[in-house]
Amino acid sequence: MKIYDREGTPNAARIRIVLAEKGLEDQVEYHSVDLMTAQQKQPAFLAMNPIGKIPVLMLDDGTVLSESTAITEYLDHLDGKPTLTGKTPREKGLIHMMQRRVEMMVLEPIDDYFHYGTPGLGKALRPWRMPDWDGAKEWGQRRGAQAVQNMPYFNDILAKQLFVAGDAFSLADISLWAALAFADAIGLPIASGLTALVAWRSKVSDLPAVKNRSGQHPLPEDIARFGG
Amino acid sequence: MKIYDREGTPNAARIRIVLAEKGLEDQVEYHSVDLMTAQQKQPAFLAMNPIGKIPVLMLDDGTVLSESTAITEYLDHLDGKPTLTGKTPREKGLIHMMQRRVEMMVLEPIDDYFHYGTPGLGKALRPWRMPDWDGAKEWGQRRGAQAVQNMPYFNDILAKQLFVAGDAFSLADISLWAALAFADAIGLPIASGLTALVAWRSKVSDLPAVKNRSGQHPLPEDIARFGG
Repeated sequence: MKIYDREGTPNAARIRIVLAEKGLEDQVEYHSVDLMTAQQKQPAFLAMNPIGKIPVLMLDDGTVLSESTAITEYLDHLDGKPTLTGKTPREKGLIHMMQRRVEMMVLEPIDDYFHYGTPGLGKALRPWRMPDWDGAKEWGQRRGAQAVQNMPYFNDILAKQLFVAGDAFSLADISLWAALAFADAIGLPIASGLTALVAWRSKVSDLPAVKNRSGQHPLPEDIARFGG
Repeated sequence: MKIYDREGTPNAARIRIVLAEKGLEDQVEYHSVDLMTAQQKQPAFLAMNPIGKIPVLMLDDGTVLSESTAITEYLDHLDGKPTLTGKTPREKGLIHMMQRRVEMMVLEPIDDYFHYGTPGLGKALRPWRMPDWDGAKEWGQRRGAQAVQNMPYFNDILAKQLFVAGDAFSLADISLWAALAFADAIGLPIASGLTALVAWRSKVSDLPAVKNRSGQHPLPEDIARFGG
């Protein structure tokens, strides 16, 4: 299998944690995508993923899979023993629900904050969400505030149960961990009063598949380059 | 089981088709959510789904599931014979990838077009995506154009295979069918030159779970009320 990604970005981290958790890391050949020259928006990459985003998984038969949830579904079922996407119908439903809530309530707002509310990776590399508009920075900052305002929702859940979607580590935890690592690196830390969320992050950071993982901080040299 | 939704909206249609396809319609009690008074943004509804969107599935034990993909994962596995979310790892990956591409390339842009590029359901009921801004209408119209520009991508796929994610009807087809029904109703029809997409839609519309389904048009009386 080949993975096309860029180490240090939150979505690359999501799939690298899945690979480690499933013991598949040595079966993967990594190809680094140069985000700074927008390689992911060039025809060769767009032929793999028309949305122009990393990561992409290419199977040995040439089949291409994009989208973190889809890649995780594939990898988690390869050995017939899913551990990250649920076993029962109820687990599957709750994990997919919480994973999507993480994306909509934290990850997407943080991404908007990074690209519009801060210098991000520069104007040319912004995603498509907003028109070129004077108020885009204010909107981006408001999106960052939304992400912060939504953190207590996850804190409340983690005060009542061990992991985001129940009693077991899952896809939803990986998404939230990657989102919060990215948030932290761009100046949106978890408030110290959110003790359940802080304790959960510490616990997840110590898991073998997550521990010492590069990818806890997004593109540090690139951010430095653009002054973010 | 209880479903909280509003017949006639694209996301309600997605789950109603899943219920029909799985033979579960008679096990569901429907509760209509009054979108025009923003019932989905009130505390009682937000306690079920903090994102404030329909549909929501409540199980008999009180467990709540939101997000169409999550609800579909639950319903599809209830009988132990998944038919809509894939059986093999490769099928699961491809279906989740294509379902997400449908959302990002067609359904979300169409939703933005409806709420910003047309009068939609009125300003007060717009989602959170954009700030209150003079250029929002232009942005909404651009999003509608993006949805139309992305339709040929799905046409090309359907010229080569029977359904959106392969040779079998799946979650990805349901999402695209609901998105295109919504697009059609608000004035963004499929171009007649996209013959594979047109033929696929005709075939899907004739499936027992889809045929004569109310929900092919969004909130017609509400749109009329706001002059959209």
